[in-house]
Amino acid sequence: MNPIRKKMVDELMHERQLGALIFWRPEELVMMLGYYPLWGISFLIYTNDEKPVLFVPVLEPKDILPSGIEIRTFPWGELTSSNPWDILFEEIQKLLNEKNISEKSISFIQERGGVTPCRMSGETPQLPVNLIGSLLKINNGKFKESDTQLLGLFEFKTEDDLKGIRLAHKVVGKAVAIFNKNAIPGMTEARLAALIEFEIALAMENSAISSSKGWPQVQSGINVVNGGRFNRSTAKIINNGDHVMLELAACVNGYWVDITRTVQVGEVSEQQNEIYKTVSEAQQFAIQAIRPGVLMKDIDAIARTHIEKAGYGKYYNHALGHHVGFRYHDAGQGFSPFSSGVLQEGMVLTVEPGVYGEELKSGVRIEDNLLVTKDGYKLLSNY
Amino acid sequence: MNPIRKKMVDELMHERQLGALIFWRPEELVMMLGYYPLWGISFLIYTNDEKPVLFVPVLEPKDILPSGIEIRTFPWGELTSSNPWDILFEEIQKLLNEKNISEKSISFIQERGGVTPCRMSGETPQLPVNLIGSLLKINNGKFKESDTQLLGLFEFKTEDDLKGIRLAHKVVGKAVAIFNKNAIPGMTEARLAALIEFEIALAMENSAISSSKGWPQVQSGINVVNGGRFNRSTAKIINNGDHVMLELAACVNGYWVDITRTVQVGEVSEQQNEIYKTVSEAQQFAIQAIRPGVLMKDIDAIARTHIEKAGYGKYYNHALGHHVGFRYHDAGQGFSPFSSGVLQEGMVLTVEPGVYGEELKSGVRIEDNLLVTKDGYKLLSNY
Repeated sequence: MNPIRKKMVDELMHERQLGALIFWRPEELVMMLGYYPLWGISFLIYTNDEKPVLFVPVLEPKDILPSGIEIRTFPWGELTSSNPWDILFEEIQKLLNEKNISEKSISFIQERGGVTPCRMSGETPQLPVNLIGSLLKINNGKFKESDTQLLGLFEFKTEDDLKGIRLAHKVVGKAVAIFNKNAIPGMTEARLAALIEFEIALAMENSAISSSKGWPQVQSGINVVNGGRFNRSTAKIINNGDHVMLELAACVNGYWVDITRTVQVGEVSEQQNEIYKTVSEAQQFAIQAIRPGVLMKDIDAIARTHIEKAGYGKYYNHALGHHVGFRYHDAGQGFSPFSSGVLQEGMVLTVEPGVYGEELKSGVRIEDNLLVTKDGYKLLSNY
Repeated sequence: MNPIRKKMVDELMHERQLGALIFWRPEELVMMLGYYPLWGISFLIYTNDEKPVLFVPVLEPKDILPSGIEIRTFPWGELTSSNPWDILFEEIQKLLNEKNISEKSISFIQERGGVTPCRMSGETPQLPVNLIGSLLKINNGKFKESDTQLLGLFEFKTEDDLKGIRLAHKVVGKAVAIFNKNAIPGMTEARLAALIEFEIALAMENSAISSSKGWPQVQSGINVVNGGRFNRSTAKIINNGDHVMLELAACVNGYWVDITRTVQVGEVSEQQNEIYKTVSEAQQFAIQAIRPGVLMKDIDAIARTHIEKAGYGKYYNHALGHHVGFRYHDAGQGFSPFSSGVLQEGMVLTVEPGVYGEELKSGVRIEDNLLVTKDGYKLLSNY
């Protein structure tokens, strides 16, 4: 576990006077241990006595488990095991009793609007019915709500997290090259997206990458006018004169990238050029102002004002950016007119202005991921 | 809405004396309306007065919305909308008041261990915190628990559902051909999986397919011994003499297929041949016994006994099959020694015996999807 992360968590426990924290969502385990579960049903019982314990289902692959932490299994997935969850909850309680913290309060993130998928993203983790209710019974119901503090942990990325995030960006860089090369007349949106998805999955030929999955969406021409409402690929063929937009989420070893690229294919109109230039400048001006201490809403305003001045304000219908790295959209306040957030060193955020409209017959979004550094920023998606 | 599905739901409402049902999970909307949401946050307020209403976020694409039902939007995703969920819950209550059913009980599926992903499967639907709590407040808390009955709806597939499921199988058939052709010495597991994923994504070049996503996992040689514990692809190169196993989930327009194929590459040992033959026979014998009225545990026993008699019983560590179609693993009892389920016409199930073991240095699973017909079964994955 990263020492800075450990310090943050220990301080949180001290401040809230907690005996233990429980982490189980895939993104929570990545954030705490750099461990991206396969089955998505592993439970970290974090105690600040240097001896936290990770419970994993007996079916979990051993080689993806984190080192330097005690691992215990519970019998989920065994044919004859009818009550693996009861066993797990009992084992957790036993552990807390052993550690003499059964009189203290515990905490965990109680609810979030959705979770990141686990490695087997075709289904969300097969958690038991009423998991939260069961966890709330631990230590005779001594639970202390700490969602704000716990979710706050996700806003800061350690050097270890950045290693994972940089590797994910490397994979995405190759996918962007495929996009740039193949966004040509005659190509379908669906095929271009499939090529990008292929490239990202192929990264698993690198033995340092045990999980790599992409969610590319390609929209072109008349379809890109919807880019501010939704992203999806269709059977449409890319034509000369089209704006072609790639919205791409990718998860590599549990770390996420979220970028957008727009290219102009062949001869485009003057207005299309102007829209592209406006969005690109708005992004650049916003990015250049990023440094610790600046209000997030001020960064949003830089991009928004630039787009408004160019006369495209009504075609820019979303916020400027959000935290990213532990999931597609990380917890925390991002760049929006309503944000009260302040930029701090170690944050990773997207910057993604866009202009889209049926009347414009076009759409452009450009999205990059940035790390806030001590005295400015570092572009992570510099392709 | 399919008339048989409608009849089932109306009967359920009558039996439980309900005023309305609320459906929102992606798989619930597919089951009720054949509608696979993009954002995953659409809400069907089903009333048996022929006038149910579907609430969708204002950003949802119009062309994927179902016909023959009233559609209303709520302002989720608009930059200036700070309380889209409050607005939605108020609108639902208003609708129930208008229909004079505010004194009746409502119901919905309260909890399940995970949901199917929506079209944008990189993240589960961005539902509000404490959605269940908010829904439970509707009609002043007049809620009647009906999970068993509601989940039972998923066990039966109508002709409309089968159209979707058959189309998904057609896409998967092409992917299986790619697997058969490319499971050759020198190919990596990762690349083979990526080729399969590509083929499934490419199906969106067919304009009748607006969403197609695959989750292939390829394991070979020494890696396939883990096939009964987990599925995943690695950087390993396929060698002569390997068993190569493809575990594949695919979702096409919201309908799911879950199949497994194992091929033998080049010269394999006598024992490998024997294992393959044993698993294949176990599957065939089990399948041939499928017809309405038969106990599911009896089907499980046919395959299990065959494998046990061949001496491989201890290497077969999982159940024989489960419902499939509305998600990777549908609700309901499947084929297992502990099942009390009975086969009925209209069910779609997997049959997937397997033998895997480190001592065997090998692993085989063969999985097909079958429809239970009036007097037997129909193989859906007949590639």
